[in-house]
Amino acid sequence: MAGERIFLDHASGGPLLPAAKAAMEKVLAGHGAAPGGGHREARESREVLEHARKQAAEFLGVEDPERIVFTSGGTESVQSAIRGWGEDAGKGTLYVSEMEHPVVEAAVRRLEKAGFRMMRIPVDAEGKLQWKNVKPGEGPGLVCVHLAHHDLGIVQDLKQAVVFAKSARAQLFVDATFGAGWVSLPAGLNGVDLVAISGHRLGAPKGSGLIFIRSGFSWRGQIEGGRQENDQRAGTKNLPAIAGLGAALAEWGRSGEKFRKTAGEAQRILLERIRKTVSNAKLHGPEPGPERNPAHLGISFAGLEAEALALVLDRVGVAARGGSGCVTREMKIPPAMKAIGAKPEEARSLILFTLGVTAPIPELSAVANLVSEAVKRLTSSLPTSF
Amino acid sequence: MAGERIFLDHASGGPLLPAAKAAMEKVLAGHGAAPGGGHREARESREVLEHARKQAAEFLGVEDPERIVFTSGGTESVQSAIRGWGEDAGKGTLYVSEMEHPVVEAAVRRLEKAGFRMMRIPVDAEGKLQWKNVKPGEGPGLVCVHLAHHDLGIVQDLKQAVVFAKSARAQLFVDATFGAGWVSLPAGLNGVDLVAISGHRLGAPKGSGLIFIRSGFSWRGQIEGGRQENDQRAGTKNLPAIAGLGAALAEWGRSGEKFRKTAGEAQRILLERIRKTVSNAKLHGPEPGPERNPAHLGISFAGLEAEALALVLDRVGVAARGGSGCVTREMKIPPAMKAIGAKPEEARSLILFTLGVTAPIPELSAVANLVSEAVKRLTSSLPTSF
Repeated sequence: MAGERIFLDHASGGPLLPAAKAAMEKVLAGHGAAPGGGHREARESREVLEHARKQAAEFLGVEDPERIVFTSGGTESVQSAIRGWGEDAGKGTLYVSEMEHPVVEAAVRRLEKAGFRMMRIPVDAEGKLQWKNVKPGEGPGLVCVHLAHHDLGIVQDLKQAVVFAKSARAQLFVDATFGAGWVSLPAGLNGVDLVAISGHRLGAPKGSGLIFIRSGFSWRGQIEGGRQENDQRAGTKNLPAIAGLGAALAEWGRSGEKFRKTAGEAQRILLERIRKTVSNAKLHGPEPGPERNPAHLGISFAGLEAEALALVLDRVGVAARGGSGCVTREMKIPPAMKAIGAKPEEARSLILFTLGVTAPIPELSAVANLVSEAVKRLTSSLPTSF
Repeated sequence: MAGERIFLDHASGGPLLPAAKAAMEKVLAGHGAAPGGGHREARESREVLEHARKQAAEFLGVEDPERIVFTSGGTESVQSAIRGWGEDAGKGTLYVSEMEHPVVEAAVRRLEKAGFRMMRIPVDAEGKLQWKNVKPGEGPGLVCVHLAHHDLGIVQDLKQAVVFAKSARAQLFVDATFGAGWVSLPAGLNGVDLVAISGHRLGAPKGSGLIFIRSGFSWRGQIEGGRQENDQRAGTKNLPAIAGLGAALAEWGRSGEKFRKTAGEAQRILLERIRKTVSNAKLHGPEPGPERNPAHLGISFAGLEAEALALVLDRVGVAARGGSGCVTREMKIPPAMKAIGAKPEEARSLILFTLGVTAPIPELSAVANLVSEAVKRLTSSLPTSF
């Protein structure tokens, strides 16, 4: 295996889609003029920008490209979406689970500190949001829900979220930074007011992302200064990244079905082989199928420490993530594992295997064997008192 | 001139430095792993990230690369710098001129609305900050000063700003998003607490920028979520852009003297020829020399409208900017022109010619003639009652 690597950490990074790379390089080689301005170069850049905006609108299935605001990535998208609603609303209720991504959690806690009310949406043992147990509050509200979960892979039922938001007279924000492309969004984003997308999780460039803001939705931009993006996001446009994002989203329109099918097949094979070779492997979140992101496996190996196992996996040639997909200051175990009631020894040993658009199916038998080898190495090296 | 273009709007955009492009493309072609994580790919990305951070520290002349936080560009840098200080301070005084960039203005107005006191620093007819006329306030304070002005080209005397900040027991923020590279920063950033840099103004990629935050300076990150950048700027790193920024800053270390000399020469030639061929041309801000950014000319053509003139210039092959370098909602004439007491007909006719690292000296005679031609066309087309 010397030198051969199997990269299974696509949720945190990965190569560009060739179409995205080509679109980006084309802009990078050009005059680099900003899209704002009256001269020919600015107009050319504006065409690139608005073409990407149309590609994004098509991907989302919405009619009005002008409702799309380009950002510097998923984190900014989520932060701006939630805080932009909060700043405009002034007060109200946030409906949110206790297993959201740290970016969502940081934004809602900021609003909570500013006087907003927080209603937590409970989850079941797979991570499914339990709407029937949430009491709709009064006044303005924002329901924050993820499309697919970064640690558990579960795909949430957005129809239920839409129904709940309506009953609570609240607006609905969908954090699609994990899951977009791999999982369908509601047709026409029906009932959804705000959506956050991260570019790099779709094979688009790092530093690219967007927010969809439904027409009429009251919101305030969070990065101010120049008049870019219809006054909703100031700053010189990162045109190469935006062109790359547009091209990636168009590629998902053409090839998404193939990407999903290939990943789903790889997911099933990998899970099956790991289960066969490693006795204490346990999948968290739903089984592969419509309720699970086809590019995601979150597996615990009770008795081991996730980071140690990830390091041994790395040494034998597999790049995977130990622990939650994103950690924050106070986080010792992934909040999602706590929320679903996983045992502490499972929570501490969660490994994320995440696939990209070129799922390495032939290598997956090797991966299962390497996981088995890593688990054995680590188990035998543990002191008996452990 | 068919097809031949002379691009003189580098302040708002322009091509990448070859070194930046090469560094960026190298990362774009790679595995794209995020720098956070334990596996080999993450470690490799971390090396790229920390190398760029060292390059940035060298460019700024500071010892501790860890005090540098990478951002998505100049706008985010400025917004986060000022608002991050304000959020931590809770209250205090802002010292700021009335001709700052809209990004600075947006951030200080936000804090003013939150209860901060605003002290305006007056300027003279060239745009030079008049410190002796500012009365130091009480309690925590932040002095906000630009390195070079985006509309007037004036280079501010940061030594005076440092002295004032000390006398006011305030901290000092330098908005170097326009001017860095072209103009020296104080050695070791002595007396400066916060600096904002925009990558694309230095031939680095769009979507790159940084904040320097002096050790011990109390500040709170504005984009929250993951633990990236030492908990000071969440979000998956835009590694290609960061690598490009580092390479650009290193290139400025090697070739900055040449860039400045070439631009300064082009600046003198262009100004001289425009003055010779166009009778109503008037330079605003200081004459070329140490008090002026060598890449910047702001010239008014009293009696004409800036945008109309820029459009005619565009038609004859010159890309320049009509009006302020950045406009905001309420801005009819550039605030800087108002602040220096320019006549309304001058303020309305300001054209910015901004140079890049490859100043097109041979073409500059042609530019002056084209400006003259454009001015004549526009003047003759004006109704006599105008």
